[in-house]
Amino acid sequence: MTARSTLLLAVPVSWAGLWTAPLAEMAPDLDVFVHGRDEYDPKAIDYALGFRPEPGLLGSLPNLKVAFSLGAGVDGFLSDPNYPKHIPLVRFVDHQLSREMAQYCVMHTLIHHRQQRLFDQFQHEKKWRQAVPPRQTEDTRIGILGIGEIGTMVAERLRDHDFRVAGWSRARKHIAGVESFAGQAELEAFLNRSDILICLLPLTADTRHILNMATFRQLPKDAFVINVARGGHLKEDDLIAAIDSGHLSGATLDVFETEPLPASSPLWSHPKITVTPHVAAISDPRVMVRNAVEGIARHKAGKPLENVVDLARGY
Amino acid sequence: MTARSTLLLAVPVSWAGLWTAPLAEMAPDLDVFVHGRDEYDPKAIDYALGFRPEPGLLGSLPNLKVAFSLGAGVDGFLSDPNYPKHIPLVRFVDHQLSREMAQYCVMHTLIHHRQQRLFDQFQHEKKWRQAVPPRQTEDTRIGILGIGEIGTMVAERLRDHDFRVAGWSRARKHIAGVESFAGQAELEAFLNRSDILICLLPLTADTRHILNMATFRQLPKDAFVINVARGGHLKEDDLIAAIDSGHLSGATLDVFETEPLPASSPLWSHPKITVTPHVAAISDPRVMVRNAVEGIARHKAGKPLENVVDLARGY
Repeated sequence: MTARSTLLLAVPVSWAGLWTAPLAEMAPDLDVFVHGRDEYDPKAIDYALGFRPEPGLLGSLPNLKVAFSLGAGVDGFLSDPNYPKHIPLVRFVDHQLSREMAQYCVMHTLIHHRQQRLFDQFQHEKKWRQAVPPRQTEDTRIGILGIGEIGTMVAERLRDHDFRVAGWSRARKHIAGVESFAGQAELEAFLNRSDILICLLPLTADTRHILNMATFRQLPKDAFVINVARGGHLKEDDLIAAIDSGHLSGATLDVFETEPLPASSPLWSHPKITVTPHVAAISDPRVMVRNAVEGIARHKAGKPLENVVDLARGY
Repeated sequence: MTARSTLLLAVPVSWAGLWTAPLAEMAPDLDVFVHGRDEYDPKAIDYALGFRPEPGLLGSLPNLKVAFSLGAGVDGFLSDPNYPKHIPLVRFVDHQLSREMAQYCVMHTLIHHRQQRLFDQFQHEKKWRQAVPPRQTEDTRIGILGIGEIGTMVAERLRDHDFRVAGWSRARKHIAGVESFAGQAELEAFLNRSDILICLLPLTADTRHILNMATFRQLPKDAFVINVARGGHLKEDDLIAAIDSGHLSGATLDVFETEPLPASSPLWSHPKITVTPHVAAISDPRVMVRNAVEGIARHKAGKPLENVVDLARGY
């Protein structure tokens, strides 16, 4: 018989049922408390699971053993100045999440590359007008900022459609058919050859606002930007200025500095910007829960945890 | 030194330059005449290259040796009742053409599956509203009518995004991770399990109007239809009726019974139908020409031709 443990769920209270139901089913030996909804004894909490726990919360749990992120990005944890640095933080890494991201990036790359917005406009005007992509696929260079589990799958899917794909990351990567650029020294060369730039980076102090005017100027004329990482990567005003000046041809954004994106944002109505409401990879709560439950089981069995964040690096 | 030969180009005269320029470059030993533009001696024509030569034209060339199609589909040749049946007809088969088709099918499958039209509407209304696909990718069954070179690539790309893919064809096919249904006897079972139906069939007497009300009724409720083959496959009125009755959820059409699609067609303004102007696979004229030039070289060298159409079968 397994000893019971206690899990604190740090999610918006109104959504908590998405995770409590599969937790009850998959981990009946776990006592689950929802922060903000349930009363609980901070000393009793063994594990925490959440998106962006309120600052100070995790530091207030003296017997916390592991924190599990419901997202691939852990900036919502590490932005807490009182995050307890001795507690291992586990990222959500899952095939399904990578697959969802790959679908989103492939879809929006193709919508741009194949001028689907133009054909939508022609349909609206009942106008039969053929148009060939300005660039052949083989000549279209895609640059992926951030080549981890997700970036690798995005790169492979786009490579399989014959795009010329390169990735930029801290350390050099080896992916068949995908060029690797590494480190700050190779960033400019990477940007210079990226007709479509896809941001999949973790948000850290080093990558905040990496999508800024200086970066855009290093992209070729008419480059297109897709941001599916975090709103904090992008200087939204710089993006609009770079498009309106005619340097960039447009952008697709799934993440924003402020979410929900305020109705007053000029991004909503910009004719060359597609806005989606942070839906590139909405993971199945059951998959998220299974991941955490497996991690807890490993921890209780004394096995090493997988996908532990390097707190110094920030991802 | 190679003997000179004579090629008749049967294409719209105003577009002829797309092919005459690469022909001049790649095959300087070929005398090229454009039907409808140039005077030529029918007895002098060795080879013909075109899309849909006017009925009777090929039969009027007594010394024609091989006809080359500029398209993958050859219905534009075989609809000629006087097509000279002793002359081999070579289809255009090319990686690039399959790749273009695969891009189009993946893009429109993803636009449907991930509800991108709904998010476009939300953006238009400046409304931040998340929505999860009604069906997980793993549970979304794609059915591809026609699994030749193109269908195989479409199937593989969609399979790589984790969709459940099946193909229907005359003979059983063996593609890793893709279920095969074969022949008329298995068509209903194939349709019953296809949430998204993609038509890539050749247009023959057997497949004309295969996308009709009886077929749509065999699809699951809310199924979606993509036609990238020929307009002649689809009974357009049946499609509209099946959508308006609430049985089908929508369609994406690249080909039409009459092209250009007349402004009076109700397809243009149907809210659940995407219309594109026959652009799923616009091949590079240089690639088309290279294909034909290589075929002519094989023929002149006495080697067997590749991709010869089975005239009885019609593809």
